[in-house]
Amino acid sequence: MVMKILVLNGPNLNLLGIREPSIYGKSSLSNLIRELERRAQILGVEIHHFQSNSEGALIDQIHEAREQFHGIIFNPGAFSHYSYALRDAISSVELPVIEVHISNISARESFRNTSVIAPVCIGQISGLGIDGYGFALDYLVKYLSNKD
Amino acid sequence: MVMKILVLNGPNLNLLGIREPSIYGKSSLSNLIRELERRAQILGVEIHHFQSNSEGALIDQIHEAREQFHGIIFNPGAFSHYSYALRDAISSVELPVIEVHISNISARESFRNTSVIAPVCIGQISGLGIDGYGFALDYLVKYLSNKD
Amino acid sequence: MVMKILVLNGPNLNLLGIREPSIYGKSSLSNLIRELERRAQILGVEIHHFQSNSEGALIDQIHEAREQFHGIIFNPGAFSHYSYALRDAISSVELPVIEVHISNISARESFRNTSVIAPVCIGQISGLGIDGYGFALDYLVKYLSNKD
Amino acid sequence: MVMKILVLNGPNLNLLGIREPSIYGKSSLSNLIRELERRAQILGVEIHHFQSNSEGALIDQIHEAREQFHGIIFNPGAFSHYSYALRDAISSVELPVIEVHISNISARESFRNTSVIAPVCIGQISGLGIDGYGFALDYLVKYLSNKD
Amino acid sequence: MVMKILVLNGPNLNLLGIREPSIYGKSSLSNLIRELERRAQILGVEIHHFQSNSEGALIDQIHEAREQFHGIIFNPGAFSHYSYALRDAISSVELPVIEVHISNISARESFRNTSVIAPVCIGQISGLGIDGYGFALDYLVKYLSNKD
Amino acid sequence: MVMKILVLNGPNLNLLGIREPSIYGKSSLSNLIRELERRAQILGVEIHHFQSNSEGALIDQIHEAREQFHGIIFNPGAFSHYSYALRDAISSVELPVIEVHISNISARESFRNTSVIAPVCIGQISGLGIDGYGFALDYLVKYLSNKD
Amino acid sequence: MVMKILVLNGPNLNLLGIREPSIYGKSSLSNLIRELERRAQILGVEIHHFQSNSEGALIDQIHEAREQFHGIIFNPGAFSHYSYALRDAISSVELPVIEVHISNISARESFRNTSVIAPVCIGQISGLGIDGYGFALDYLVKYLSNKD
Amino acid sequence: MVMKILVLNGPNLNLLGIREPSIYGKSSLSNLIRELERRAQILGVEIHHFQSNSEGALIDQIHEAREQFHGIIFNPGAFSHYSYALRDAISSVELPVIEVHISNISARESFRNTSVIAPVCIGQISGLGIDGYGFALDYLVKYLSNKD
Amino acid sequence: MVMKILVLNGPNLNLLGIREPSIYGKSSLSNLIRELERRAQILGVEIHHFQSNSEGALIDQIHEAREQFHGIIFNPGAFSHYSYALRDAISSVELPVIEVHISNISARESFRNTSVIAPVCIGQISGLGIDGYGFALDYLVKYLSNKD
Amino acid sequence: MVMKILVLNGPNLNLLGIREPSIYGKSSLSNLIRELERRAQILGVEIHHFQSNSEGALIDQIHEAREQFHGIIFNPGAFSHYSYALRDAISSVELPVIEVHISNISARESFRNTSVIAPVCIGQISGLGIDGYGFALDYLVKYLSNKD
Amino acid sequence: MVMKILVLNGPNLNLLGIREPSIYGKSSLSNLIRELERRAQILGVEIHHFQSNSEGALIDQIHEAREQFHGIIFNPGAFSHYSYALRDAISSVELPVIEVHISNISARESFRNTSVIAPVCIGQISGLGIDGYGFALDYLVKYLSNKD
Amino acid sequence: MVMKILVLNGPNLNLLGIREPSIYGKSSLSNLIRELERRAQILGVEIHHFQSNSEGALIDQIHEAREQFHGIIFNPGAFSHYSYALRDAISSVELPVIEVHISNISARESFRNTSVIAPVCIGQISGLGIDGYGFALDYLVKYLSNKD
Repeated sequence: MVMKILVLNGPNLNLLGIREPSIYGKSSLSNLIRELERRAQILGVEIHHFQSNSEGALIDQIHEAREQFHGIIFNPGAFSHYSYALRDAISSVELPVIEVHISNISARESFRNTSVIAPVCIGQISGLGIDGYGFALDYLVKYLSNKD
Repeated sequence: MVMKILVLNGPNLNLLGIREPSIYGKSSLSNLIRELERRAQILGVEIHHFQSNSEGALIDQIHEAREQFHGIIFNPGAFSHYSYALRDAISSVELPVIEVHISNISARESFRNTSVIAPVCIGQISGLGIDGYGFALDYLVKYLSNKD
Repeated sequence: MVMKILVLNGPNLNLLGIREPSIYGKSSLSNLIRELERRAQILGVEIHHFQSNSEGALIDQIHEAREQFHGIIFNPGAFSHYSYALRDAISSVELPVIEVHISNISARESFRNTSVIAPVCIGQISGLGIDGYGFALDYLVKYLSNKD
Repeated sequence: MVMKILVLNGPNLNLLGIREPSIYGKSSLSNLIRELERRAQILGVEIHHFQSNSEGALIDQIHEAREQFHGIIFNPGAFSHYSYALRDAISSVELPVIEVHISNISARESFRNTSVIAPVCIGQISGLGIDGYGFALDYLVKYLSNKD
Repeated sequence: MVMKILVLNGPNLNLLGIREPSIYGKSSLSNLIRELERRAQILGVEIHHFQSNSEGALIDQIHEAREQFHGIIFNPGAFSHYSYALRDAISSVELPVIEVHISNISARESFRNTSVIAPVCIGQISGLGIDGYGFALDYLVKYLSNKD
Repeated sequence: MVMKILVLNGPNLNLLGIREPSIYGKSSLSNLIRELERRAQILGVEIHHFQSNSEGALIDQIHEAREQFHGIIFNPGAFSHYSYALRDAISSVELPVIEVHISNISARESFRNTSVIAPVCIGQISGLGIDGYGFALDYLVKYLSNKD
Repeated sequence: MVMKILVLNGPNLNLLGIREPSIYGKSSLSNLIRELERRAQILGVEIHHFQSNSEGALIDQIHEAREQFHGIIFNPGAFSHYSYALRDAISSVELPVIEVHISNISARESFRNTSVIAPVCIGQISGLGIDGYGFALDYLVKYLSNKD
Repeated sequence: MVMKILVLNGPNLNLLGIREPSIYGKSSLSNLIRELERRAQILGVEIHHFQSNSEGALIDQIHEAREQFHGIIFNPGAFSHYSYALRDAISSVELPVIEVHISNISARESFRNTSVIAPVCIGQISGLGIDGYGFALDYLVKYLSNKD
Repeated sequence: MVMKILVLNGPNLNLLGIREPSIYGKSSLSNLIRELERRAQILGVEIHHFQSNSEGALIDQIHEAREQFHGIIFNPGAFSHYSYALRDAISSVELPVIEVHISNISARESFRNTSVIAPVCIGQISGLGIDGYGFALDYLVKYLSNKD
Repeated sequence: MVMKILVLNGPNLNLLGIREPSIYGKSSLSNLIRELERRAQILGVEIHHFQSNSEGALIDQIHEAREQFHGIIFNPGAFSHYSYALRDAISSVELPVIEVHISNISARESFRNTSVIAPVCIGQISGLGIDGYGFALDYLVKYLSNKD
Repeated sequence: MVMKILVLNGPNLNLLGIREPSIYGKSSLSNLIRELERRAQILGVEIHHFQSNSEGALIDQIHEAREQFHGIIFNPGAFSHYSYALRDAISSVELPVIEVHISNISARESFRNTSVIAPVCIGQISGLGIDGYGFALDYLVKYLSNKD
Repeated sequence: MVMKILVLNGPNLNLLGIREPSIYGKSSLSNLIRELERRAQILGVEIHHFQSNSEGALIDQIHEAREQFHGIIFNPGAFSHYSYALRDAISSVELPVIEVHISNISARESFRNTSVIAPVCIGQISGLGIDGYGFALDYLVKYLSNKD
């Protein structure tokens, strides 16, 4: 069976390329997904993308992922700093998750220095721009391959 | 007129019985509701159940309860720890609410030790598994009967 | 082109006039909007109103405002105290926003003393009842006129 | 062998019915115990009651319970907020304990929001008046029956 | 009897128009007062202005206002963040007070985020420049008219 | 009926005159009581003295005071800083209590700066040596006389 | 030489009897001083009274007291909670000072629980109404007599 | 005169050997005392042992030690973390005290990391099992011998 | 034009040489100024001295300095620890200010470890006795010379 | 000129493969470097490796990197949590640095949740095992290529 | 094989006997080691001593101890309060370590009350002077003997 | 005997003139030392300079200074904020030390606002650029001359 990865983007990431480009870069969300799909093809895996500004919709998607995907690459945006409900959703489904942030959240406002999501993920990448998604994909595929 | 109680379950409780059974037990959400309905029948009251992973949908439901129900049994899941909007919704409708948690939230991670919902409820039950819902129902019916 | 202002109301404000009238007053939300529309007509601007109990729906609306409105009057209700996602949405769209609270949030529970939204707004009005919306409208129109 | 439950009441609970009745209700401690005994009889279990204003006497009683009782229903009163010695006593005897508070401790002074006892109990009931003891008894009997 | 409003400005506001104009604007204090007087005339009320850099002089003035004025518009400047004596003065005289800040105190240094004055005022306006005074005047007149 | 006042001394006060005389003075506890009795005789009231190092015994005594005394002069010693159980005991009996400390607790270790007892007393005297007891007696007698 | 005591009253105490009488009582400041003068005459000492709403004027007065008075009875009002300058003034003059508060500052808002003045005083009386001044006078006279 | 040492054990230590043996070891309290007595005999000193679960009884014992013993070896159990009354008792009697904990309190729950007793002792031993008592005895004897 | 420097001394510095000489030294304020004037003469600059115990008078003086002086040497005394109004005054006038403390404020009470003034100064000298003023003068003259 | 990257490993990383393999994996430091060198060869860049347990030696190495390398991949080990000196060293040399941690520092002890190094890096990778170094190398090479 | 123990002393302990003798005693480091060697000989074990003021050198030494020693007696001096790198070094080598402090670190400045080293040691001795080393040696030998 | 002063510079100060010149200025370390030597010659004292990025080397140097120097001028760089080991080294040698910082550490990141070194120094100069070293030299020479 082919390996399937969910790429999940949280609030305001639909504005990628438009929103504060000095922080988040100029590439649009669709560009990012196209690049990830190319990389996925090379790795022989399938990716599915979902973006929402709604905490509830993201939780629903994580729940559905339980039976449909092998792992998740998750940029929770600002939910990273307070959504214990998303954290519980991740714990519930027992899938490996890698948290990605485009900007270096340690070098910004102090409320961005803490992620309540990270403790239930296997790892975190921040500040490497949209390349962070690609690295997360590489690692997740390798991680899942070793587990089998 | 028959007494009507809303049973409200917050995020991730749709996974009851599947999600971390060592913490939350093996009984599914539909089992829980079936048992509660049986108990309600004995007490001569009606219950209605609603579960959502979305904060907004839960607030909407609490608002609608204002004219349709006499009281609420509410397991806010992780929203318990940060949703001041749900707290305000409860204050707004002036219905008696009992907060229920399946696990003992005092014995887990420190962020679970505080409920921002509890101060606007009449009481709280935690750690008594799904039996907590039953006790809440018993008490709420008694409480409402005495008020009349 | 006519100036267009979005009036955005967050959770529980649909209950205006019903909910805790000793704190929030007796005027309903539709009354408030009608009065604001009258004032807008006098000022020669258009207003559009949107209320939701859902954080995600409010973020979506702010995003759409980016191309459709010149400024926002925003009462985030209790989201004021924790929604960094709404804060990011405001930063993303680069529109001037004025935060309005009907009650004096400094004179209530301590969790209401902090707004995570205010630092990305141009100003804040609290405690002046529903008149706060009108003052915000006056100022926003003047502010936008001076910018041109 | 018949199941035996210790009902333990901490400081100031001897004044039940007299002390601040708007908070703690009008029923006296002896009424409470009589009701609990009736319930115990129905459930086919024995209860023993002990009240003391002395932390040391409560610890002694918990120690003695180790060989004489199968579980404890414990209202530690204000000791709940600082008595690590009582907490250790509970850990020492390895009996299941349910913490009960008559009033909703989450809705009162902030020092009452934290229980240092709760983390070593199986659960907690607060704000359900003296009915909380009854629910605790029901649950404890069920819990102990399932264990065997 | 004509309605009389005291306009009170605290430390450093004598430098308005000179001091950090990027934060506080270019209009001088006398301009501000002239504009307020014009508005007062239209509303049919009298205003009196007093500015001091001395906490004691401001307290004296608030005390005198007790018998001479119907309400106060108060920009306490930096006293906002620590002068409990000014707070007590306001409580003592039982006049309605609106706190005004020219800049958005939520978007500046963290020590400016808290006002010890606001909890004893009826409301607060910040970040709307010197227009904040005008809005405060409008509201205070309406508020006092409704009270009679 | 003659007015009756309970003088209550907490832990370590039995060592008065012996213990750290540079802080607590050289007068013994029996001297203190003799002086208080002389003063009581002049005022035409009766005093009863009780000292214990045990929190439970002090609570018991406060409970008994409910029907036997009209007010309490209480030096809780170090219990002042953590005994919420004693605080509850005072609230329970609804007698006027004056807290007395021989040394100036504000000028010593920081843990001595907070009294959890004081908020349920009518007042507090500290640092005036054993004279504090005498002043407390004068005031309590006057306070109780005015109440009738 | 006759003993001379300075009675110093801080901000808002000029409104005694007028300001929030439920907290501060109905007696005016001049009544208080008259009563103190009568007591002083009996004790054979002289008192001088000074009230100001200005921190600077109070500091000046404390400095002048250095050569003119033998001790100070000081009600610093709200300056108690933040005026390190007054604290330094007291340390500078090396006169014995007793801090007096009319209301029980431990039973009010949390910012009133801390006095930065108390650590440099010999003692503190709070909550005993205006009688606190009289007790302070008695003690100070006795304290100064013993020192000689 | 022979040197006399008091060995004092606080709450729950009567369960030594029974209570959580993975933390506190399998040796009983009587074994511990027997071993200490043997060591005392070798050192030519007398020891007396006292255990209580009551804070008041421990304070009484420390007071009596003042005239009967030359030093104290004290395991305050959980009282270590909050009993300022025990701390004051130790300061009062001016005897050298060594605090002993069987387990390494630094490696357990955070509330166990602070001892309010330690600052008034001459030293502390933790984590060396029941051998800690023996080392404390050796050191205390040496310390007392050098003092003479 | 000759360079003019304002030397500003805050509360209690008028007592220099008298107040706590073990901390602040034995030299009087007039000696200090005389020495500074001699140094100023050598450097070819003029100094003007002003001391006040009143925060308002110090703010007034800083405002006036704006057009009369090129820089300020400021010992704010205890105002250093809380006067945000003085801080704002310094920001307002845009003159270079050097903060001087005679004693080492880092080695005293913890409230003295923070200066709210320092962040708007160019530098700070503490603990070098009254010589700190001289060094500040040297540096300020050099700093101002380089700027031109 | 060929691009040169410094790989810097801090304290205890010399024990890689030996130290707590359940956390840090079984691969040795030399294996890690060999793999990185292979990757570097493919990317056409040179890497140099340096490990030290000494903060000073790491600072020296960062200083030397200023003229010899184009960027740094840095695993500061536990220095991450307190070495402001290393942070300053990175700021000083103005080279792009990526912080790498083998384990997920967000999911371990709370002191590991904060990096004082991260705010001066361009990004951070944690929890991806030794693969984190490879991703850092890829990104750094791309980042440096784009800059030219 | 003979048991080998490393005695490790951190910064400033080379000055033992010279540095603040009122706190650390008059015995020199070489005396201490000589005494320990005598005790080691009696116990039939070998000790090796190493002192350094450098964190890096201490870490190196702990690493080397991994294969050369059976346990460590470690006085980390002030590194105790912040060196997470030393803590990690101890965790890495999996040798039993006892932390020793000559003075009672609980009775000194507050920054000395916390040891980041202690949680990874088996126990801690503080305040027993240089005898603490001897007790640590006794216990470590016994601990290691029992393990075999 | 000629007076000898040690000038000690901590981490990253070797890059003076190169590192962030907008903060630290353009003068190199050797220039600074040359200037200080000239000043020393005029004052008739000898200075010796030592710079290291290693905490251990700085401690060693301070120890050696004990017998070779009369005082120290110390810029601890970032060690200022956490090196309790350096603080202890200074206490150990009992030499007068003046702490110097080139930039105004109060006006930068909050972690730079606290110096753990300052409490054991006689004074601190910050923000006066490299001139701070010269002032420190002047004062230290005067201070040492007066002591003799």
